[in-house]
Amino acid sequence: MGVGETVRMPYEWMSFTTDYGLSDGFVAACKGVIARTAPGVRVIDVTHDVPPQDVRRGAVLLAQVVPYLPAAVHVAVVDPGVGTDRRGIALLARDGVLVGPDNGLLTPAAEVLGGIVAAYELTVPDYWLAHVSATFHGRDIFAPVAANLANGLDPGQLGPELDPATLVRLPEPHRWVEQGRLESDVLVVDRFGNVQLAATAGDVHAAGLALGAQLTVRAGDAVLPATLGTTFGDVAPAEAVVHVDSSDHLAVAINGGSAAAHLAVVPGTTVVTLES
Amino acid sequence: MGVGETVRMPYEWMSFTTDYGLSDGFVAACKGVIARTAPGVRVIDVTHDVPPQDVRRGAVLLAQVVPYLPAAVHVAVVDPGVGTDRRGIALLARDGVLVGPDNGLLTPAAEVLGGIVAAYELTVPDYWLAHVSATFHGRDIFAPVAANLANGLDPGQLGPELDPATLVRLPEPHRWVEQGRLESDVLVVDRFGNVQLAATAGDVHAAGLALGAQLTVRAGDAVLPATLGTTFGDVAPAEAVVHVDSSDHLAVAINGGSAAAHLAVVPGTTVVTLES
Amino acid sequence: MGVGETVRMPYEWMSFTTDYGLSDGFVAACKGVIARTAPGVRVIDVTHDVPPQDVRRGAVLLAQVVPYLPAAVHVAVVDPGVGTDRRGIALLARDGVLVGPDNGLLTPAAEVLGGIVAAYELTVPDYWLAHVSATFHGRDIFAPVAANLANGLDPGQLGPELDPATLVRLPEPHRWVEQGRLESDVLVVDRFGNVQLAATAGDVHAAGLALGAQLTVRAGDAVLPATLGTTFGDVAPAEAVVHVDSSDHLAVAINGGSAAAHLAVVPGTTVVTLES
Repeated sequence: MGVGETVRMPYEWMSFTTDYGLSDGFVAACKGVIARTAPGVRVIDVTHDVPPQDVRRGAVLLAQVVPYLPAAVHVAVVDPGVGTDRRGIALLARDGVLVGPDNGLLTPAAEVLGGIVAAYELTVPDYWLAHVSATFHGRDIFAPVAANLANGLDPGQLGPELDPATLVRLPEPHRWVEQGRLESDVLVVDRFGNVQLAATAGDVHAAGLALGAQLTVRAGDAVLPATLGTTFGDVAPAEAVVHVDSSDHLAVAINGGSAAAHLAVVPGTTVVTLES
Repeated sequence: MGVGETVRMPYEWMSFTTDYGLSDGFVAACKGVIARTAPGVRVIDVTHDVPPQDVRRGAVLLAQVVPYLPAAVHVAVVDPGVGTDRRGIALLARDGVLVGPDNGLLTPAAEVLGGIVAAYELTVPDYWLAHVSATFHGRDIFAPVAANLANGLDPGQLGPELDPATLVRLPEPHRWVEQGRLESDVLVVDRFGNVQLAATAGDVHAAGLALGAQLTVRAGDAVLPATLGTTFGDVAPAEAVVHVDSSDHLAVAINGGSAAAHLAVVPGTTVVTLES
Repeated sequence: MGVGETVRMPYEWMSFTTDYGLSDGFVAACKGVIARTAPGVRVIDVTHDVPPQDVRRGAVLLAQVVPYLPAAVHVAVVDPGVGTDRRGIALLARDGVLVGPDNGLLTPAAEVLGGIVAAYELTVPDYWLAHVSATFHGRDIFAPVAANLANGLDPGQLGPELDPATLVRLPEPHRWVEQGRLESDVLVVDRFGNVQLAATAGDVHAAGLALGAQLTVRAGDAVLPATLGTTFGDVAPAEAVVHVDSSDHLAVAINGGSAAAHLAVVPGTTVVTLES
């Protein structure tokens, strides 16, 4: 591109989600690659503390944050299959572009961003670093691809178009509703010990549970009496509330305490049951 | 605002202090909201690792960092009362604006920024997200309000003016000085194990303690002999020094070690005594 | 500089590496100082999680990240000697400038950046904060010096030129190669439990080890059978691979597991032996 030539830059923003942590310089190396290729772009870190190789947790987090981000290229790397034959992909959604491994990490966010318009496999090395390592595709492939997209590259240049039906997708979490009873997988546990369920406000309604209902929450052997409410302050300190949280999921919380500790739940594995 | 119209932007910078942690995407959602409303503003993260719901620690940290920040809108959210009737506020200080809950978090920083010129309650939803959750006012109220302020909004538009005397304030930490003896609450313990006290250089002077004095430091049952000095290197490795730290507070440190571990102190709760 | 005068700004970017952690506001205070002095500069955080006072770890990380960063002023502060007579320095390298303490932290990165062109001791307080604390030179000296360099200050203004031969350097890590056998210090252990060695691809070649070789890895009493491969996926889940990592160092990894846990290694101290 000649000096003084106008740059078409469809994306001023990038979001960045990984399981790299902040201790080892991996995130910095990726940001350096982005800065060298697309110096004008600004990066919002979604998180780099996805538990190592926990693709589901990364997918859930990204999908819950993207509604609040500006139009962006979303790069996400939780990639236990790096160096194997898992595909690298770019997904053009109605309201953004996503770049990362084809392992289910990107598709929930793509749905939130209006659905997948087109999908491409990353096969053209022109848009990668000149030397690609076997174990750090975040730095060597995904970051430079994302920076090129931010610079206005047509995603069709990245490689062949893919049938979206062939993309890897995570299994839907378990949810089961009957009158007065609701079963759900745990989606995430946050830093405050709030336990977010896959179940939503609609499931509560379908179970016929009304605000103020007294519930019994069970996870394995743990039992926790709780009130169906709208916020922590609806119950006394140290008491439990089940409420619709800030991402429109049902959540179990203890006012001033940790529901996760009380229920001994871990993300992604435990079924929680609510009964009136 | 029409295309091409000049934006009056009194604040190019924002600071951001929370107890959200960096693992759950809460900070990213807030930054996304800021970016969508005030794309030109740049955010300096003070910390997001305030211990959950530790309002005092957040207040102390923010007040110690603001003297070094550029003119900014300072958003801070450590908010155990979210969803109750605690007020959301904006404080116009002489040298900046602060936004957050009315629970004592903001007032020490406002004093450092030259004192409160005017205080407003956040009641006008025009400057919030369209949908406000019950539990995440950082994203839904404080971040968009701060972004609007950065864009030049008159804080008087946010809601009714408050009498600053009605603002919630944290109790002053305990300090007691007599000849040759000084008692003080611990303010914070940092990552290096340095124990920062509420006491200041003035208190040392008032107690008649001079550089080089041999002190006995006590916290509960723990006893630590220490020298009154100016830096870690004033004592041999593994020995303790009491010095005026980089925030002008008295601090107990061990050269190459952790005074906090030796004294078994935790932030905000322990009284430390120095005696010559 | 007069209002309206054109600013010569040779560095749009800064990198920032410390052992300050993100909990205590130290990084934010430094960034505030940078923003006030050089508002246009953008900062890439290499890491702030260097283990407290671990100069070697900081030096290794910075040297491995700088090849991927844009042209920058690199500020690094891991500084157990703050407040003693250790020197503060600026190193002009062929491809960037480095600022920090003279304790070996900066020299490996300077070599990666094309070698030291000139070295200067920081003695001229005009480019520091007006009040310099005894314990926080990152905020009071290194950050403002770096910001002034980003603004175009000639590094020769910072103080007297130093003979690079007088700079403090860390001892070279231990590496020993013989036919079919290789001994090496551990450089770093990353968040995934991968154990990076000081040894490189050249050492493997010199030891006569070929891809696919079956190795025995030893660290202290721990023994781990491993395959010499190129990536994690070369071995079955839970099996170990020795490979050249993304920084061109030899590394021991377990596919889907932690080699560090299995070998019980800690950074910088342990010798690992590979035998065919």
